[in-house]
Amino acid sequence: MGGLFRQSFRETPMKPLPDALRKFVADSPVCRIATVRDDGAPHLIPVCPVFDGESTVYVDIGDRSASAQGVRKSGDVAVLVDHYEDDWSQLKAALLYCRAEIVQGDEQDRAWHMIREKFPQHSTVSWEPRLTLALRINDWRQWGVID
Amino acid sequence: MGGLFRQSFRETPMKPLPDALRKFVADSPVCRIATVRDDGAPHLIPVCPVFDGESTVYVDIGDRSASAQGVRKSGDVAVLVDHYEDDWSQLKAALLYCRAEIVQGDEQDRAWHMIREKFPQHSTVSWEPRLTLALRINDWRQWGVID
Repeated sequence: MGGLFRQSFRETPMKPLPDALRKFVADSPVCRIATVRDDGAPHLIPVCPVFDGESTVYVDIGDRSASAQGVRKSGDVAVLVDHYEDDWSQLKAALLYCRAEIVQGDEQDRAWHMIREKFPQHSTVSWEPRLTLALRINDWRQWGVID
Repeated sequence: MGGLFRQSFRETPMKPLPDALRKFVADSPVCRIATVRDDGAPHLIPVCPVFDGESTVYVDIGDRSASAQGVRKSGDVAVLVDHYEDDWSQLKAALLYCRAEIVQGDEQDRAWHMIREKFPQHSTVSWEPRLTLALRINDWRQWGVID
């Protein structure tokens, strides 16, 4: 999957995520991920993520989904972790610009260990490993998570 | 803004949204919208939408935002309205494939009348009309909203 990864991105060191932002991402049960479809139109889905605590979000998606097609085409994925309340002083959001890598073997096993631990309900929907993505955070923005 | 609208889309009649889906979209206080950035990468933001009850979602976004740039470039916007619960039998989502039109005048006024009515808290953040988008639904998918 090395071809998916733009070298130019790796050469720019990412500003590390502050602790409050790491906790916000790690604790969120759901996020939304946007990709670009084959026809150039945007696509997005809700997905249940796990976070390695540093710079990688893991998600597992349908192998033939439009999101999977978008990842195979470009590898650019935007991840939005947000929290809505009717009291708008409490709105929080983190936008993570990521490069996706399809992971297998040990890294997929580690991701799935985290998924099974964070989401014990995975068994209620017979969720088993499909296309597991490591979303490597290259840049980020946040609103309301950090003062 | 006619140039933003692909004629080919308008020639395909949209399958009307079932009542349960209209209510789900109308009642949701937040949705996420995905666009494509100038550099081809996906982008997404949370936004508070109103719905005309038929086929148009209205949102109001920053005029210089990356989302606004994406809309001006292509006009394709994906709108995700979803509901998360830890009980995964209760997950619901509607994905709306839309064409964006920037609206002004009477249509913008009607949109803002709905925004002020649905979100009385708009005044707490001094939210006034900026770039108001009519997101015309051309196609849609749903999961869990309709049995």
